[in-house]
Amino acid sequence: MARVERTRSAERIERDIETLAGRDYTLSDEAIRRYAYTPAYRNTLDYFSGELRALGFEVDEDPVGTLVARNRPRGEKVFGIGSHCDSNRNGGRYDGTMGVVTALEVCRLNEELGLGLPLQLISFLEEEGSGFGQMLLGSRIMAQRVTEEELRETFRAIDDGRSFWEHAEEAGCEPARWRECSHVLDDLTGWIEMHIEQARVLQDTGNRIGIVTAIAGYVHGDVVVHGRGDHAGATPMDFRLDPTLPLAETIAELERLAREAGKGTVGTVGEIEVDPGLINAIASRVRFSLDVRGPDDDAYRGVARDIAAYAEEAARRRDMRAEFSQRQTLPATPLDARIVSALEEAATATGEPTMTMHSGAAHDTMCVAERVPSAMVFVPCRDGISHHPAEEADPADAALAAEIILNAVRTLSAR
Amino acid sequence: MARVERTRSAERIERDIETLAGRDYTLSDEAIRRYAYTPAYRNTLDYFSGELRALGFEVDEDPVGTLVARNRPRGEKVFGIGSHCDSNRNGGRYDGTMGVVTALEVCRLNEELGLGLPLQLISFLEEEGSGFGQMLLGSRIMAQRVTEEELRETFRAIDDGRSFWEHAEEAGCEPARWRECSHVLDDLTGWIEMHIEQARVLQDTGNRIGIVTAIAGYVHGDVVVHGRGDHAGATPMDFRLDPTLPLAETIAELERLAREAGKGTVGTVGEIEVDPGLINAIASRVRFSLDVRGPDDDAYRGVARDIAAYAEEAARRRDMRAEFSQRQTLPATPLDARIVSALEEAATATGEPTMTMHSGAAHDTMCVAERVPSAMVFVPCRDGISHHPAEEADPADAALAAEIILNAVRTLSAR
Repeated sequence: MARVERTRSAERIERDIETLAGRDYTLSDEAIRRYAYTPAYRNTLDYFSGELRALGFEVDEDPVGTLVARNRPRGEKVFGIGSHCDSNRNGGRYDGTMGVVTALEVCRLNEELGLGLPLQLISFLEEEGSGFGQMLLGSRIMAQRVTEEELRETFRAIDDGRSFWEHAEEAGCEPARWRECSHVLDDLTGWIEMHIEQARVLQDTGNRIGIVTAIAGYVHGDVVVHGRGDHAGATPMDFRLDPTLPLAETIAELERLAREAGKGTVGTVGEIEVDPGLINAIASRVRFSLDVRGPDDDAYRGVARDIAAYAEEAARRRDMRAEFSQRQTLPATPLDARIVSALEEAATATGEPTMTMHSGAAHDTMCVAERVPSAMVFVPCRDGISHHPAEEADPADAALAAEIILNAVRTLSAR
Repeated sequence: MARVERTRSAERIERDIETLAGRDYTLSDEAIRRYAYTPAYRNTLDYFSGELRALGFEVDEDPVGTLVARNRPRGEKVFGIGSHCDSNRNGGRYDGTMGVVTALEVCRLNEELGLGLPLQLISFLEEEGSGFGQMLLGSRIMAQRVTEEELRETFRAIDDGRSFWEHAEEAGCEPARWRECSHVLDDLTGWIEMHIEQARVLQDTGNRIGIVTAIAGYVHGDVVVHGRGDHAGATPMDFRLDPTLPLAETIAELERLAREAGKGTVGTVGEIEVDPGLINAIASRVRFSLDVRGPDDDAYRGVARDIAAYAEEAARRRDMRAEFSQRQTLPATPLDARIVSALEEAATATGEPTMTMHSGAAHDTMCVAERVPSAMVFVPCRDGISHHPAEEADPADAALAAEIILNAVRTLSAR
């Protein structure tokens, strides 16, 4: 394993993060607000380009503006590292950006230590969807999971309603060549993305590094319970069709089912809408959302199926009617065992507390993993706070991640 | 018992209701919208005045505009009957108005049958609070349950923000003499208000008349559960402080407690507010309302106390914090046993299906009952729908109520 001066790495990472939180790199004084085709975003890409060129990398942008930098000519095999450097609209300094900064540090270490690893850094476009309301947009374009119609017409800027296409052209990109974006992945032998965890498992278990073995799939849906809106004072208990009761039973049952399913399955009711929503009126109707996820498709899909059936039955038992409707579903993304094992080996060598885990949140890596053996590395963020100016992560943990990624790539490239 | 030609009564009641649903009597074409000091309200009072004068009644308005009509000079004992003729803003034809119309029919029958009963009809002002956002305003003024400050300053028109005082003066009333309103009740030996039930007990049990033995008291309050807003995908079940779970447990427990308490106790969660309310976020905070009522103060107050303690404990069990805060409480109003019994006797004599019940909703009679022995009579309304243009009640039931009230007053006046 290559020995890394972690303190120096942490200092450089901190300086990068600090720089990219400066006024040239955000559209807001109170938060990091950075998305595609804005001056703040342009400056951020230019910063990375400058740093990477100084390390001898050839820096390019794909037809929609994804930053791609490599230290080998096209056609030669390289190992991919990176993340995204856009933020949500009221974001912090670390989500995405710390992953690109850490990838940059890996490039620096590779150079400094004379390891000669073939690397390609990618900074994905519009992971957060702040510009056009479309999450993972850059990596979906790369994975060809969009249509031209969407890019030309459907996807429109939150700020001015003009199309993605128009904005991309105005920024000097060539959206008409969007299909060529897939070539960015052509030469990759593997891919590792570093990201803040966005939850509190690492912090609460005292681990500094999480090695991600899978990205959760999910089912998003809604349940509507149709009750009968009666007077809360004048309607005896036996005369009621109160839809908040099936709601209550379903919330409790969802917790039970998710725990019973295990394997990282989680279930959440995050939205509850009560009609008419008056203190003195029995609700006529309740709508609530279901978010069921996990790294094991059979497990979380079983829970989603069971909770939908349960809600309908809970309503029926009380002479009401409930219906479940699915909004969206995406399967889990298992990550590559060989890369995970190389990361574990490199992590163990550091002597620091690390763990394997899955990612409950979605990441660009979901789109990369289809074509390239992939894995992810998580670092803790304070109290799990993310997508908020109060977001905080430790550059020392990122330096540790850089060392682990460097050594894993070294092992994988040597084999 | 006096024999009444119910079909003719029903026709007259239907005609009155029909008339008062006409364009001169409502501010809206799509609903009954009628509140104090508007032309529609003025026309309604004038209609009743004309009908009552034709029966030989002396018609007056108290200093704030409550209609008071009597067939005996002041100082002589009279029996009070009536209700209110204002509506909520999106109201129906029957709530309140059918009670005044039925009282008018009692006056007609008294005249026609030559019974010579001493009667005073009252039509209360602003029961619904549509004008100034204050429920039972007229009867509260009569009961001196308001302050001059409130009438002069605090109570303001929903439409233009000007004070009750200003509006009353502009309408030719003398709000400065509001304390004299209490004299309206001076000569009353008893009071009976007829009203639509606003629930579905009569309809669903096949009864045409409900004789009300008490008006429910209530506790209104809120529970706030403080959880922790984490990522719904990234936060394992064991790492959550999800405030929707104490919410769910409290909804279920409230139903159990209300049923267990019996004695007409009811409990409702009608408002639920989830922060931030996103499908993919565990809530950081949930607020929900509690409406606990019943005719038995000990019973419903016990439930209110127990459910507040339960919610706090349910949160504590899950390492969260919940707090209950009371918005408002009003004790139950037991109605007069002698009047109830006279009504029961008169009801039995009709041979029609009738029952005793309590009122879960508030009524002007709560303010009258403090000073005057009082009772109420309910008639069914279709499917319990009220405060809505779809409100519907049967004039034949109102005619039956008129006969019962007439005979009860006769019995009570003879004793």
